Amino acid sequence: MKASIYIATSVDGFIARTDGSLDWMPQFGASGEDYGYHSFMESVDALVMGRKTYDKILSFGVNWPYTKPVVVLSSRPIDIPDELNGKVVPMGGSMPEVVQGMIQRGYEHVYVDGAATIQTFLNFGLVDQIIVTVIPVLIGTGIPLFGPVSEDIRLELVSQASWPSGLTQNTYRVVSSDS
Amino acid sequence: MKASIYIATSVDGFIARTDGSLDWMPQFGASGEDYGYHSFMESVDALVMGRKTYDKILSFGVNWPYTKPVVVLSSRPIDIPDELNGKVVPMGGSMPEVVQGMIQRGYEHVYVDGAATIQTFLNFGLVDQIIVTVIPVLIGTGIPLFGPVSEDIRLELVSQASWPSGLTQNTYRVVSSDS
Repeated sequence: MKASIYIATSVDGFIARTDGSLDWMPQFGASGEDYGYHSFMESVDALVMGRKTYDKILSFGVNWPYTKPVVVLSSRPIDIPDELNGKVVPMGGSMPEVVQGMIQRGYEHVYVDGAATIQTFLNFGLVDQIIVTVIPVLIGTGIPLFGPVSEDIRLELVSQASWPSGLTQNTYRVVSSDS
Repeated sequence: MKASIYIATSVDGFIARTDGSLDWMPQFGASGEDYGYHSFMESVDALVMGRKTYDKILSFGVNWPYTKPVVVLSSRPIDIPDELNGKVVPMGGSMPEVVQGMIQRGYEHVYVDGAATIQTFLNFGLVDQIIVTVIPVLIGTGIPLFGPVSEDIRLELVSQASWPSGLTQNTYRVVSSDS
């Protein structure tokens, strides 16, 4: 099973302001350009995120944004609205059990989302690919990309792209942890 | 007068580990590739840095690494070793006075270095160009690029480069502050 991260940061390396705000990000709908997001989403079989990210998305109260199944990691039962039956797959247990569960469901490529889940997958050496889109702005302070890792994670540049809007995107393969 | 920043970060946006350590950076001497550093240094007339950065460089105890004049910002007199007479130019006073002093010396392009000085120049709207080199590694925690800014600073992508080592480099023009 392959696991990928697709995330956007400011030039100074923040994924959100300290209060979680994303108002400094471009409105993707505005230009019609989606910076490879749709194509990336097509390539995955499922998303995986933690309960906090899941709850936050539910709290937006708008239409569920995903067509692919969403694995929600939680040690306790989670609240699944009727209309999301079959679209949300709760999983608990250890990371090896979770990975086994996803493989058993036939997922060959998963999109790892949400700060805590990204960190867990990174620290278990389970991330294969990282796609980082850089927004051309300095916001000064905020929540850093990824958060603490147990050891340095070396990456290999696979490709580089840029758009007239000034956004750039680096695709990395995770080489190894410097253990 | 044009002011530029030339700086390297990890993929997760840190310029150094929390303790200031740079051991995760590639050894530039090893490959002979300098990622445009020499060419950039040739383009500037002087460097400008704060007393702390100056003291730190002095403390390394190796040969003075700069051939261009180095303006050291300090409100108090600074210690200049004999061999650096004429190479180090102390300046005090307000930022407009400092800029005036550099213009009077004929500096048309300065390299702004050191976290505090970079922040000051950014917050005074004095930075024209930012060259960010991204090292393909996640270090998890550390000192973020630049630090707080008084308001968002929008950038325009001028060019993009990459090297076989996986390092990438974005050159930005500072467009404006979102005031």
